[in-house]
Amino acid sequence: MTEPNDTTRASRRKFLMGAAGFFSAGATTRSAFADNAKNLPPNVAAWTRNLGGGVGTRPYGTPSKYEKEVVRRTVPWLTATPESSVAFTPLHELDGIITPNGLCFERHHGGIAEIDPNDYRLMLHGLVDKPLIFTLEDLKRLPGVNRIYFLECAANSGMEWRGAQLNGCQYTHGMLHCVQYTGVALRLLLEQAGVKPNATWIMAEGGDAAAMNRSIPMSKALDDCIVAYRMNGEMLRPEQGYPVRLVVPGWEGNVWVKWLRRIKVGDQPWYTREETAKYTDLLENGKARKFTFEMDAKSIITSPSPQAPLRQEGFTIISGLAWSGRGKISRVDVSLDGGRNWRSARIDGPVLDKACVRFYSEFEWNGEELLLQSRAMDDTGYVQPSKDALRKIRGVNSIYHNNGIQTWALKVSGELENVEVG
Amino acid sequence: MTEPNDTTRASRRKFLMGAAGFFSAGATTRSAFADNAKNLPPNVAAWTRNLGGGVGTRPYGTPSKYEKEVVRRTVPWLTATPESSVAFTPLHELDGIITPNGLCFERHHGGIAEIDPNDYRLMLHGLVDKPLIFTLEDLKRLPGVNRIYFLECAANSGMEWRGAQLNGCQYTHGMLHCVQYTGVALRLLLEQAGVKPNATWIMAEGGDAAAMNRSIPMSKALDDCIVAYRMNGEMLRPEQGYPVRLVVPGWEGNVWVKWLRRIKVGDQPWYTREETAKYTDLLENGKARKFTFEMDAKSIITSPSPQAPLRQEGFTIISGLAWSGRGKISRVDVSLDGGRNWRSARIDGPVLDKACVRFYSEFEWNGEELLLQSRAMDDTGYVQPSKDALRKIRGVNSIYHNNGIQTWALKVSGELENVEVG
Repeated sequence: MTEPNDTTRASRRKFLMGAAGFFSAGATTRSAFADNAKNLPPNVAAWTRNLGGGVGTRPYGTPSKYEKEVVRRTVPWLTATPESSVAFTPLHELDGIITPNGLCFERHHGGIAEIDPNDYRLMLHGLVDKPLIFTLEDLKRLPGVNRIYFLECAANSGMEWRGAQLNGCQYTHGMLHCVQYTGVALRLLLEQAGVKPNATWIMAEGGDAAAMNRSIPMSKALDDCIVAYRMNGEMLRPEQGYPVRLVVPGWEGNVWVKWLRRIKVGDQPWYTREETAKYTDLLENGKARKFTFEMDAKSIITSPSPQAPLRQEGFTIISGLAWSGRGKISRVDVSLDGGRNWRSARIDGPVLDKACVRFYSEFEWNGEELLLQSRAMDDTGYVQPSKDALRKIRGVNSIYHNNGIQTWALKVSGELENVEVG
Repeated sequence: MTEPNDTTRASRRKFLMGAAGFFSAGATTRSAFADNAKNLPPNVAAWTRNLGGGVGTRPYGTPSKYEKEVVRRTVPWLTATPESSVAFTPLHELDGIITPNGLCFERHHGGIAEIDPNDYRLMLHGLVDKPLIFTLEDLKRLPGVNRIYFLECAANSGMEWRGAQLNGCQYTHGMLHCVQYTGVALRLLLEQAGVKPNATWIMAEGGDAAAMNRSIPMSKALDDCIVAYRMNGEMLRPEQGYPVRLVVPGWEGNVWVKWLRRIKVGDQPWYTREETAKYTDLLENGKARKFTFEMDAKSIITSPSPQAPLRQEGFTIISGLAWSGRGKISRVDVSLDGGRNWRSARIDGPVLDKACVRFYSEFEWNGEELLLQSRAMDDTGYVQPSKDALRKIRGVNSIYHNNGIQTWALKVSGELENVEVG
C-alpha cells in the first residue's frame, strides 16, 4: 500500500476527523436518521433484540434483500432478440477482482443451451492420429489446473467508437468478468489425440443453437487454453457454458466457446461467420483486420461513475479495474482533468497474468467539475491509448476492440456523464 | 506444473489412450447411454436444434438445475436450535481455491441478523481519544484493501477428537471457505480514533441476537485485520455478516465477528462467554488453553472422499485443500497407506498468505483397499500432525482446533469411509 501525497493525506485526515461534518459520535441526532434512531448505537437495534433466521434457510445462498439492484442488466434496443443479446456485469456495484458467478455478464448467439451433463460429450477430431470423445467425467478425471483470468467480449465498449454513448460503466465496459477457472489443459487432450505434423489451427464449436464456432491457432491451443468445467470453485453456470467451455486467456471472449461440443484440428482457419462477417474490424480503407484475438490493455473507473455518483464533497476515492490480454498490468494512472495531468494509482490485491487488477486513487473533491480518466500499462510497455488515437488508425466502422481511455465528466451536482474529450 | 513419476505417467497414458476402456470414439454405442444416443456426437443434440433461453432470464444468476445437490448441509442433531447451528460447505463438490458466496458455510449463535444498511452503524469507543461512529457509506469512502483469505471455524473437525465420526469432508471439514474480501484496514480506523497508550486489547461485538463478542489483542488489530463489507466483489451475504464483518486473517472464525456493531478498546481481555465457556480447549489436567486464535496448518482430501466415491479403477486424481493461519503453505504430502509412505502433491493455482491452496496427486488404483491421507506444511516449518499426536498433548475434552491428519479408507467398491489409523 503506497501513501497518498501530502495534500491527499491532509484531506483524508480532515475527512476522518469529522471536519467535513461526515463522521460524528452523535449520529443518532442527525435528522436524516431520526426515524431510525432507535436502531442506532448506543441503543440496541431491533435485529439484536430479536432472534434471526436459522441455518439452512437458504441451502444455496443469495444476496441480501437490500442488494436487489445489484444485477445484470440488458439494453433492449441493442439487439433484435434476447437469444442473441447481452446482459451486462454491474461493475459499478463491485470491488476487488473476483466477479461473483451470478453477476458474470451473458452474451449468447442462440440462447442458453441447457445441457444434461450425463449426455455431454466433447469430440476431438480432424488432423489427429486418434479421434477421441470425452464425457464430462472423463474430463474431471484428468489432471486439473486452476487459473484466475479476465474475460472480455471483443465488442465491450463497442458503441464508443462513434462517440460517447451509453451512460454507465455497466453498459460501456460491463462485458467483462474475472473468475477462477478449473479444468484440463487443452494441450493434454491434443497430445493424447496426437496432432498431425501439418496441423496449425483448431476450430472450437459450441453446442448451442448457434453452434458458435471459431478458429484458433494451434500455438495458442498448445500454450495456455483450458477446457474448463468450473468457475470460482463450482460448476460453470448455464450462461457461461455449463458444463464445459473453452478458456482462451487474454483473447476476445467470443473464442472462449461455451457449451463446448467439438474441437476439430486442421491446417488452416475455417473462416466461420463469427470470424468474417463478425468479430473483424472494418477499417476506413475497406479492408478488415481479422483474427484480432488479443485484448489490449484497458482500464475503467467503476466508482465514481454515472451509475455511482458522488454524494458529498471532500475526501473521495476513485476505484477501478485494469486488465491486459498480453500479460500483467504494471501501472495504472488516473487523471482528473481529461488527460492533461496524470498521477499513479495504487494497485491493491493480487496482480496476476491476464487477470483484472483493482486500483484506487484518492483526491479531494471541492465540488468543481472534473474529467476523470484512467489509463492502464502492461508489462510489454504498452500504454492504453485515447479513443481519438485509436480512431485515427482504425476509423469508426468497427464495433470491436475499443480499448480507448474512458472519460467521466463529474458535475457540480456529483452526477457523472459519459463524455468525449477533444 | 510438476510431472508425475514414471509409473503414474504410464498410468495416465494408458487411461487417456482408452486402454482402460474409458475413452472411446464410439461412446454413442455404449449401452448406458443408449437412451440418449440421439444427443451424442456426431449427431446434433437437442440443445443445438432448439433455441435456448434469452439473456436477462436470471438477472442474478443461479447454478444449473443439474447441480441442485451442490448445497450447504446441516446435521440436525448437532445443535439444539437452527439459530445456533451450522450449515457446511460442500467441499467435495468444489475445486480451485475460491468458494462461491452461495456455498460459504454458515455458523450463527442467534440466527441471521437482517440489517438495513441505511441504519447500520459501527461504534468505535473505549480507550480512544475520540470515539467515532461510522455509517456504511463512511466505511466505503475510506481507502480499500482486497485480500483472499481462508476462514475456518475453530470447531471444524471438532467431532474427530473422539475418533472418526461424521462421514464426508462436508461434515468433517466443511466449516471452511476462502474468498476475496474488500474493506478498510482496522488499523486506519483505530489510528483516527487515537488509541490511548495503555490500550492492549479490542473487543469486537456483533449486531446479532447473540451480540457475539470476542477480545482480540491490539497487536493483531493493528496488523492485518479488515473491517470488510464485500466478499468476492459483491456485498457480504446476510449469513456472512451483511453489511460488515471483521476479517482476522489466519485466526479462528469465531473472532471474525459478523454484523459488526461495536469495537471497544481496552487494556485487558473481556473474558466473554465465547472465549471462556466456549472456544477454549479443556486439557486432561483440567486446565484450559485460552485465546488459541491461530489456526495451525491443515489439509483435507476433498476427492475422492465419502461423498465423492471412485467409480472406476485405473488412473485417479486426488484433489484437496491445504491452509495455514501462520503463513503460506509450502508443501503438501499425500499417503495411500495410512501415513507409512508419503509423496509430494502438486500445488496448482495461486499460493497466497493465509489462503487455501489446491493440491493434486495422481495414482493408479487397482481396486485394492487404501488409506488416503494428506498432510500440510507451512513456511514456518510446521508439519500437520496425526490426530493421535494431537490427542497425546491435548486430550479429547475439546471440540476445537483439531488440525490432525484425516484418513479416508478406500474400499474395493470405490466407497470411502472416515476411519482412524493406529
